[in-house]
Amino acid sequence: MTITRHLPSKILSDIVEHDGRIYLAGQVADNLDQGVRGQTKEILATIDRLLASVGSDKSHILSVNIWLADIRTRNEMNEAWIEWADPAHLPARATVEAKLGDPRMLVEIMLVAARK
Amino acid sequence: MTITRHLPSKILSDIVEHDGRIYLAGQVADNLDQGVRGQTKEILATIDRLLASVGSDKSHILSVNIWLADIRTRNEMNEAWIEWADPAHLPARATVEAKLGDPRMLVEIMLVAARK
Amino acid sequence: MTITRHLPSKILSDIVEHDGRIYLAGQVADNLDQGVRGQTKEILATIDRLLASVGSDKSHILSVNIWLADIRTRNEMNEAWIEWADPAHLPARATVEAKLGDPRMLVEIMLVAARK
Repeated sequence: MTITRHLPSKILSDIVEHDGRIYLAGQVADNLDQGVRGQTKEILATIDRLLASVGSDKSHILSVNIWLADIRTRNEMNEAWIEWADPAHLPARATVEAKLGDPRMLVEIMLVAARK
Repeated sequence: MTITRHLPSKILSDIVEHDGRIYLAGQVADNLDQGVRGQTKEILATIDRLLASVGSDKSHILSVNIWLADIRTRNEMNEAWIEWADPAHLPARATVEAKLGDPRMLVEIMLVAARK
Repeated sequence: MTITRHLPSKILSDIVEHDGRIYLAGQVADNLDQGVRGQTKEILATIDRLLASVGSDKSHILSVNIWLADIRTRNEMNEAWIEWADPAHLPARATVEAKLGDPRMLVEIMLVAARK
């Protein structure tokens, strides 16, 4: 079973494909001068782009982990999520609080999707 | 490969089935007036019910993530876990501390299982 | 589809195999008198051993979760990671902060790999 890895950095691959699954690395915003809602929107646009690059899309997401630097910003994150998510194809999801790689990072999202 | 989604809320599906795997959303207790042990017992009963609804059971769980609002309650959680778990079919598991969606939530459990 | 479980403790299996995937339980160092770099090195050696025991290796890792007791030790962890990782076969990965099972545990690593 082939493993295909895309967009490697020094430490990780942003996309790993294997046996009909697509594993994305934890995504954070590039522009950290935004609030939770803006960072979430940027991350979700990145996820759209990453999934499209391997021929999939948000309606094929299976399971999602979301980390928030402050869990009290959950509603703000969820507003951006609901605007973006496909209501007929919602993934399993868990959201918990965690300090992230940079104090200005307010949201990080990691997921597993299916190939089309 | 079909994706089947069950029990959708506004933001997530509690169960996602794809290619022989069952992904559950992070489960928390409904009754938050209980301690860690009570909340864990309630969550594990919910997991039994969710897995049964798609024809699987706890002996088919592959991997589990547990978040505790206070990691020092680990033994209390594990007591409920050991009473419930099938000792001949234990999953991979990791347990770490994280603040959860409501300050009264003391435990959250997310997992991947195999279909029967 | 068979599920094979290895190295069970009272609460979890260190390795679960199912349908071409290998799920490892969250690994921590045995020697907790080490710093982040030493603990990471020990954990990565354990992962090599666990994967080898089921005929796989680090070039087959798909996705990794890393928890650090202090996210500010990320570079120290990454130094040990980069020394170890196969640069041509990097997995998806997310690293966040979380308190772990013992206050002396500084790193925990959980992963999913493919079978060879």
